Amino acid sequence: MSEAKSYRYIGTRPVRPDGVDKVTGRAQYGADQNLPGLLHAVFVRSPHGHAKIKRIDTSAAEKMVGVHAVATGADFPKVGREAIVGGEGAGDFADLATNVMARSKVLYHGHAVAAVAATSQAIAEAAAAAIVVEYEPLPVVLTMDAALAADAPLLDEHQFTKGLAEKPTKPSNLASYLEFKRGDLAQGFAEADVIVERTYTTSTVHQGYIEPHACTVRVNEDGQAVIWCCTQGHFDVRTQTAKVLGLNMADIKVIASEIGGGFGGKTTVYLEPVGVVLSRKSGRPVKLVMTREAVVRASGPASASRSHLKIGAKKDGTITAMYAKLEMEAGAFAGSPVAPAAMCVFAPYKVDNFKIEGYDILVNKPKVAAYRAPGAPQALYASDSLMDELAEKLGMDPIDLRLKNAASEGVQATYGPKFPRVGFIECLQAAKAHPHYTAPLGPNEGRGIAAAFWFNAGMQSSAHINVNDNGTITIVEGSPDIGGSRASMALMAAEELGIPYESIRVQVGDTENAGFCNTTGGSRVTFATGMAVIQAARDVIGQMKQRAAAIWNVDADQVEWDDGQAVPKPGQNIDVKPLSFGQIAAQSGRTGGPISGRASLNARGPGPSFSVNICDLRVDPETGKIDVLRYTAIQDAGKAIHPSYVEGQMQGGTVQGLGWALNEEYVINASGVMENAGFLDYRVPVASDMPMIDTVIIEVPNPSHPYGVRGVGETPLVGPLPAAANAVKAATGVRIAHLPLSPPNVLAALEAAGK
Amino acid sequence: MSEAKSYRYIGTRPVRPDGVDKVTGRAQYGADQNLPGLLHAVFVRSPHGHAKIKRIDTSAAEKMVGVHAVATGADFPKVGREAIVGGEGAGDFADLATNVMARSKVLYHGHAVAAVAATSQAIAEAAAAAIVVEYEPLPVVLTMDAALAADAPLLDEHQFTKGLAEKPTKPSNLASYLEFKRGDLAQGFAEADVIVERTYTTSTVHQGYIEPHACTVRVNEDGQAVIWCCTQGHFDVRTQTAKVLGLNMADIKVIASEIGGGFGGKTTVYLEPVGVVLSRKSGRPVKLVMTREAVVRASGPASASRSHLKIGAKKDGTITAMYAKLEMEAGAFAGSPVAPAAMCVFAPYKVDNFKIEGYDILVNKPKVAAYRAPGAPQALYASDSLMDELAEKLGMDPIDLRLKNAASEGVQATYGPKFPRVGFIECLQAAKAHPHYTAPLGPNEGRGIAAAFWFNAGMQSSAHINVNDNGTITIVEGSPDIGGSRASMALMAAEELGIPYESIRVQVGDTENAGFCNTTGGSRVTFATGMAVIQAARDVIGQMKQRAAAIWNVDADQVEWDDGQAVPKPGQNIDVKPLSFGQIAAQSGRTGGPISGRASLNARGPGPSFSVNICDLRVDPETGKIDVLRYTAIQDAGKAIHPSYVEGQMQGGTVQGLGWALNEEYVINASGVMENAGFLDYRVPVASDMPMIDTVIIEVPNPSHPYGVRGVGETPLVGPLPAAANAVKAATGVRIAHLPLSPPNVLAALEAAGK
Repeated sequence: MSEAKSYRYIGTRPVRPDGVDKVTGRAQYGADQNLPGLLHAVFVRSPHGHAKIKRIDTSAAEKMVGVHAVATGADFPKVGREAIVGGEGAGDFADLATNVMARSKVLYHGHAVAAVAATSQAIAEAAAAAIVVEYEPLPVVLTMDAALAADAPLLDEHQFTKGLAEKPTKPSNLASYLEFKRGDLAQGFAEADVIVERTYTTSTVHQGYIEPHACTVRVNEDGQAVIWCCTQGHFDVRTQTAKVLGLNMADIKVIASEIGGGFGGKTTVYLEPVGVVLSRKSGRPVKLVMTREAVVRASGPASASRSHLKIGAKKDGTITAMYAKLEMEAGAFAGSPVAPAAMCVFAPYKVDNFKIEGYDILVNKPKVAAYRAPGAPQALYASDSLMDELAEKLGMDPIDLRLKNAASEGVQATYGPKFPRVGFIECLQAAKAHPHYTAPLGPNEGRGIAAAFWFNAGMQSSAHINVNDNGTITIVEGSPDIGGSRASMALMAAEELGIPYESIRVQVGDTENAGFCNTTGGSRVTFATGMAVIQAARDVIGQMKQRAAAIWNVDADQVEWDDGQAVPKPGQNIDVKPLSFGQIAAQSGRTGGPISGRASLNARGPGPSFSVNICDLRVDPETGKIDVLRYTAIQDAGKAIHPSYVEGQMQGGTVQGLGWALNEEYVINASGVMENAGFLDYRVPVASDMPMIDTVIIEVPNPSHPYGVRGVGETPLVGPLPAAANAVKAATGVRIAHLPLSPPNVLAALEAAGK
Repeated sequence: MSEAKSYRYIGTRPVRPDGVDKVTGRAQYGADQNLPGLLHAVFVRSPHGHAKIKRIDTSAAEKMVGVHAVATGADFPKVGREAIVGGEGAGDFADLATNVMARSKVLYHGHAVAAVAATSQAIAEAAAAAIVVEYEPLPVVLTMDAALAADAPLLDEHQFTKGLAEKPTKPSNLASYLEFKRGDLAQGFAEADVIVERTYTTSTVHQGYIEPHACTVRVNEDGQAVIWCCTQGHFDVRTQTAKVLGLNMADIKVIASEIGGGFGGKTTVYLEPVGVVLSRKSGRPVKLVMTREAVVRASGPASASRSHLKIGAKKDGTITAMYAKLEMEAGAFAGSPVAPAAMCVFAPYKVDNFKIEGYDILVNKPKVAAYRAPGAPQALYASDSLMDELAEKLGMDPIDLRLKNAASEGVQATYGPKFPRVGFIECLQAAKAHPHYTAPLGPNEGRGIAAAFWFNAGMQSSAHINVNDNGTITIVEGSPDIGGSRASMALMAAEELGIPYESIRVQVGDTENAGFCNTTGGSRVTFATGMAVIQAARDVIGQMKQRAAAIWNVDADQVEWDDGQAVPKPGQNIDVKPLSFGQIAAQSGRTGGPISGRASLNARGPGPSFSVNICDLRVDPETGKIDVLRYTAIQDAGKAIHPSYVEGQMQGGTVQGLGWALNEEYVINASGVMENAGFLDYRVPVASDMPMIDTVIIEVPNPSHPYGVRGVGETPLVGPLPAAANAVKAATGVRIAHLPLSPPNVLAALEAAGK
């Protein structure tokens, strides 16, 4: 379904510019930077889930031949509530600094305590093993109930709950509380003919990116640092590293490598500030690469959650009230995604009476990071499961129930603003009309549907365009390409300028040669950086018209740009032949010099994204094992600039969501030690686990973007959690309110239900 | 002497931004790029000065283990007069292509015939030695007389002299002829009371840059090439490589490394197209590094010259006529710098009757390249030596003679335009007033003075500026920094923006992330790229004013920029505190996004540069050895942005010029083989050879530049040739009309003169 204007380049599927280098091994990833004199770093990590650090003795390590630097918390600027370095940009830098390198306490198993840089990995490992750390173990807080217990051991004695109506009188593991509400909740439930209510829980999961965190850092005697790393946002790496170390950001240049997956997990620093300390101390470049085990134990997984929800509706399906209590684990430092979870949990629906409460809770686990629509999968798993229960209780088709209550243009979202034009109803209609929705099912098979939502982000982006005198151009922008954005940028520029896609090269610049771009996240890049590219192209067109006017000896306002060429405006009676982009570029030297365009913006109106998923699966009653049989993901992309990459996002997100729904979880023992720290035991879906994921792109243009683009990257992860859960209910008759739906969990639930 | 406006940053001498990395070995030069799977290339070069290539057999080399690719002329697109690839930009690409890799003939000893890429340098050398080339030797043409003889062997049978009044009927080694004239030469000489006339000759010399030509090239299966190389102009490397290979320039990215000297010699390609061929054939990255011997034999030295000059003057010193016949060796392909030589030879003087003829002559030597004011040292060596003879004959002080005839504002230059404001008279006056000019001399000591000139270049440059939200900025421009231009760019931006030099980083971008810049040459960068930086800064200021206006809720035209802050325009009665650059930058996100500025231009009015040099030296009558005792270089810089780097240019140019004057020359045997191909035998001055070079910067602002900048890099090389020759005459009484003034040459001349 498309309300397409006619485009020449947008909507086509050319080969991605970075493809060949990526499949031939030429592309440089985080660990691929090598320099003369390079040292290799190894971390010492906490063997305890919670402990005081009594003493660190690095003397034996420092004496070892080949060891050039050892870093501990003592090498970092002091932190503490009173010594937060700054307030802008990336949150609480004291927490970040303490997460990067533990100070007086370790707060989770795997927390970095020291690091060694040596001439070989083997020497660094031996030296790390020679560092003596004396701990005083403390009680480990591993669940939200334990964290909120009256006598709970405190992760941070200076942590007072934020957001409460009354000022707290004593410290707490509850980092913050939030509340969204509108209308009269009690009245809403009183008006309901039917009420459903349930508590849903999810486990800690990891983004599972293939490439571990990795960087190489070089600091010179002037204090000028260069960092090569894999990241979703090198400008944020610069800010965070500067803040953690108290440096001037201008002294840090960050060069983003290609990235082997991030999904939100590569939006914060773990290694880079440590690399700066080690390189500064040693005078040598230092490479830091996490092991897979370190990635899982000590980067930022997604929050485990507990969501208690209640929905009331009239017999015709009209929702009268919605309530959610969302509790999310932050890990060792404040900052779960409970706020976006609260924004999203009821966002697909129009409801006058609702209340959403959010709890951000500290536990002795690694600090969580963003994971593809952070907070939304956990929250919508709960709400869209409960919507399914409501449909069942009402005896309504689940799509009809959603259509009855669907958010649409002008509806005031539960998170505040009125929706602009959105494509939720179109997605629901497409799902209902899709052959998949009415295809027959076999024994032990079930079909679930789910609706999903992500608000998408705009934020700051910059782009500039350099025009070559043979009519080709280069676009330089600062958004790491995590999903084909080079191709999308080139397509939008081709459309604006009227020149072939093949004439365009796109470079992801570093923090010096590219204008500032916020991190690649929030599904913002095609929308916001794309808009910067479009504006930079228009800056170029303005100059092209001026140059054409100079060649024709007329005024620039007598010239217009039409499909890749300058032409006289109608009615100007100027007897000239059109000048193509390439012709004007070839004459740029004599008409004033090279042509370049620039744009930067803080993009507003990213355009919310909705999807509807249909999931068929079979539950083996003997083992509890689930096989996904068929999956259709339907999503409003606004406008798909490069449809293959939109489909890729939908397919990839679906598979990640199914992994979260069906198998993935951190298995953490009573001491706080994760027991499945590797891809053998932490089971992400592989190709043979999955059917082909069918996709349907809906195109309801975002009115805030010249081409109607909405972000597409995150919404796809959300639907699979409730869709799979609803399908399991359909297949088994049992509502399992905990993820993952792994064989032991499913089998236990079936047995408990007497099946 | 200075007509200085008051500046805060310009004219100061801060530390250069690239200094630490250069002195600590971190800076990456041409050979410092290493990649996985790197191959090393070795060339097969001609053992003949002139020969037909009958057959090349690469089969043995290709079979050797470790050899991945062999390239010969057959791997390149066909060339020939009828197959010139293109016409724009960098001259005759067929000649360039044939110089890069010989086709049917070799034209000089050392001409590249084949190249091998192998897994090690040793294997590549062995394989190169296994390539069999069968030659048919041809007579070697080594002098201009031999080249112009009626029955001379032809280097190129398709070469017809260009520029003659009558169309030539047969091919010739005279590639081109040119003529500049004005007035009535015969009448001018008839009016003269005194006439001087002499023929001066100079030898082939080399720029003597420390860093050999080097590059690493990687081509992928898509045909996308990346070239890392040391060059004065990576955009030209891109153009030339594309033209030589018939590629789309957009498929070639060139990254300029730091450069260990160029002086004009790194403005053309030798290795890069061969690297593309070898990498394409092998599928691997290839590193190509010239040996010192290859640099001297097969890169681009400076032309040997023969200049016959005649000057007539009245008794009071007024010049009535000037004549010059300038003959210069082009080497194996057309293109000596005889045109700029002709532009410069009489440029310092006002003269109504003159004629200048130029001859560009092919000989079997490597094709010459630019060398710091190309053509001017040879030409002004002759004219300023003859001016000295004229002064002597007139019994005039040589500075007074020059003052009598000095070019100044409004005088029509011998090369065409009327001079804008120039500082020649100021330099002459400063020389005359300098204590050096009247200091006593001892036995066998002499003092020479010389005037020098270079017209300087403007050309195309681009710059963009990215503003960080902490108030620091990065400038990205595309001019390789060969003389401290990063510091100069930062100083000019600091002055414009009113922010500290330390807040500014300057990056030399690659051909994709920087806007187009012509090659660093012609003393153009501080002038032209500097002007682009200034304009980009003004673009930033425009936006800063808009942002301040938005913060104050006033119109942008009510705001002005004053010394680093936005203030309300006087009389606007707006009650606000000024907003600093940093304050506005910090709020850029909420006022519209990041701030960046851009500019590109084709710079006009570079501003001619004059200098006057005073040279004291002692000639050992026993050995002919010359010791330079004292040297004062006086030069009009227009405005010295960073005086230390202006002084550095003056000192470095002087020393190179003294090397050319006193010792340097290609010793070429009768077979065309250079016999002194290394720094042991090709004698460049070392520190112990030289006194401290004193400098006096004159500042007569160039009216075409916002800060009055004139180019300074090339003029310093010109004066030392005539200054040293004139000093030798003063010390010995003998006019030696040939350079170098090496001990054997001086001794022979003294003996011939009976001294």
